[in-house]
Amino acid sequence: MPYATENNLTDLARKQWEACQSPRLRKIMQSLVQHIHGFVRDVDPTQDEWLMAVDWLAKTGKLCSGKRQEFILFSDVLGVSMLVDAINHRFPEGSTPSTIIGPFHIDDSPELPMGANLAEGLSGEICFLVGTVRGLDGKPIEGAKLDIWQADAEGMYESQLGAEEPRLRAVFHTGPDGKYAIRTIAPPGYSIPMDGTVGDLLRKTTISHYRPAHIHFLIAAPGYETLITHLFKKDTKYIDSDVVFGVKDKLIVEFKQHPAGKTPTGEISEKPFLVVNYDFTLAKSKP
Amino acid sequence: MPYATENNLTDLARKQWEACQSPRLRKIMQSLVQHIHGFVRDVDPTQDEWLMAVDWLAKTGKLCSGKRQEFILFSDVLGVSMLVDAINHRFPEGSTPSTIIGPFHIDDSPELPMGANLAEGLSGEICFLVGTVRGLDGKPIEGAKLDIWQADAEGMYESQLGAEEPRLRAVFHTGPDGKYAIRTIAPPGYSIPMDGTVGDLLRKTTISHYRPAHIHFLIAAPGYETLITHLFKKDTKYIDSDVVFGVKDKLIVEFKQHPAGKTPTGEISEKPFLVVNYDFTLAKSKP
Repeated sequence: MPYATENNLTDLARKQWEACQSPRLRKIMQSLVQHIHGFVRDVDPTQDEWLMAVDWLAKTGKLCSGKRQEFILFSDVLGVSMLVDAINHRFPEGSTPSTIIGPFHIDDSPELPMGANLAEGLSGEICFLVGTVRGLDGKPIEGAKLDIWQADAEGMYESQLGAEEPRLRAVFHTGPDGKYAIRTIAPPGYSIPMDGTVGDLLRKTTISHYRPAHIHFLIAAPGYETLITHLFKKDTKYIDSDVVFGVKDKLIVEFKQHPAGKTPTGEISEKPFLVVNYDFTLAKSKP
Repeated sequence: MPYATENNLTDLARKQWEACQSPRLRKIMQSLVQHIHGFVRDVDPTQDEWLMAVDWLAKTGKLCSGKRQEFILFSDVLGVSMLVDAINHRFPEGSTPSTIIGPFHIDDSPELPMGANLAEGLSGEICFLVGTVRGLDGKPIEGAKLDIWQADAEGMYESQLGAEEPRLRAVFHTGPDGKYAIRTIAPPGYSIPMDGTVGDLLRKTTISHYRPAHIHFLIAAPGYETLITHLFKKDTKYIDSDVVFGVKDKLIVEFKQHPAGKTPTGEISEKPFLVVNYDFTLAKSKP
């Protein structure tokens, strides 16, 4: 190969990474070279800035564990996670849009019967989630799995609390009518974790580091595209400044105040409660 | 802010990072958003590929320590380190070109008198480094500091061996004639560390993971630009395939075979030896 100059380096590096065995890895590495070199040529970093960047990356890696992935958080605040999500979920018009899965989903949540209380034993504003899971043809989907997870009344998720039992997460299945009705508590908006390298970076800005109140859904049914999304509380704080760009118009829904009395799951509540009424529309999976 | 779509996300993310307090950080973060989004749009990653990437970054961070910086190695094999070096060392025509500092430089090496043996007590092919440090006007520079470090005959650096005493590194100063003459041993080419995440990546390619034989120099003198460079052995293995793109034409020099006899430092060698004869030319520092 020819020797390096400022002018030929990007071509040399692209050429070196031609030697990937898989065409897919080749495409990824050559594009990475092209775009990182483009970034470097654009910002003209000093040696000290470059060293700060590699140190920051090392520090960020050290913060990662089974319960925390600081690089996902970095991807989130750069809008990269939402972009990857958008690219992978180009659902047809009329389908419920997806949003990021976020760092707090835990696999193998316990199965609860429809109508059960997701927030058993936890205090907070009582809230019911009700609606129907449908196909684009409007027909209800039987046996759709709803995997639901959310923060507690303090804005904390199970993995942040180190809880030993499943907490505010469960799986439900729809019956023949495609309906769901679940009791829970209303989550508040919350700050993303600010005690790591992403927090250090955000403190050098006036960017709001909060997310608006939301509940997470992963909805899967045979023959349909899996939908990973949130429902956001209408008019809630931070709804127009979500630090990770997760909000979409069609995912904003009213958490409607109801007086004490009969609830959507048939009980009598002595306290007032909220009702979130939302129908999910799934796209058929691609053949 | 408007809600995210595949189309507007890059603009939204750029706009979010406008809120940096320092104009320099703003420039860097907005350019990073632009180029990372460009990369993502170019390669269309699946969710699994994105997750593999964030896991790889976390693993890479965990490998870093005071003695190892796997992200610098990644920067090296992408040609990014050499690009940053080139951008920061646009020396005038006639100056000795720079190359990367690499991961093995250690600060505060011991000062040795001119003519001393850098490789005292170590076995290897005897080798003398001789020449003059000059300005672009051709005049010798008095009091130029030469900080020299290199691998041993097995291709290993001090920090890789965990040595307790300084090993194959020292600082020398030129006298009024600007000359240097140093005894050492000839280093071989060597593999970059292959036991980390960069090695994992390179094993998915047929890229040669070797560097050609070289000796490192950091040369500093008042009134001149500091020069960080290597001298590469002419016709040595890997000279045309340096995995980190460090080689430049003007840094290739003959390691000339001499029979036993008088050496450049005035001793009599009973064994044959090599002589590397090279004049360094420093650019005046910018006012």
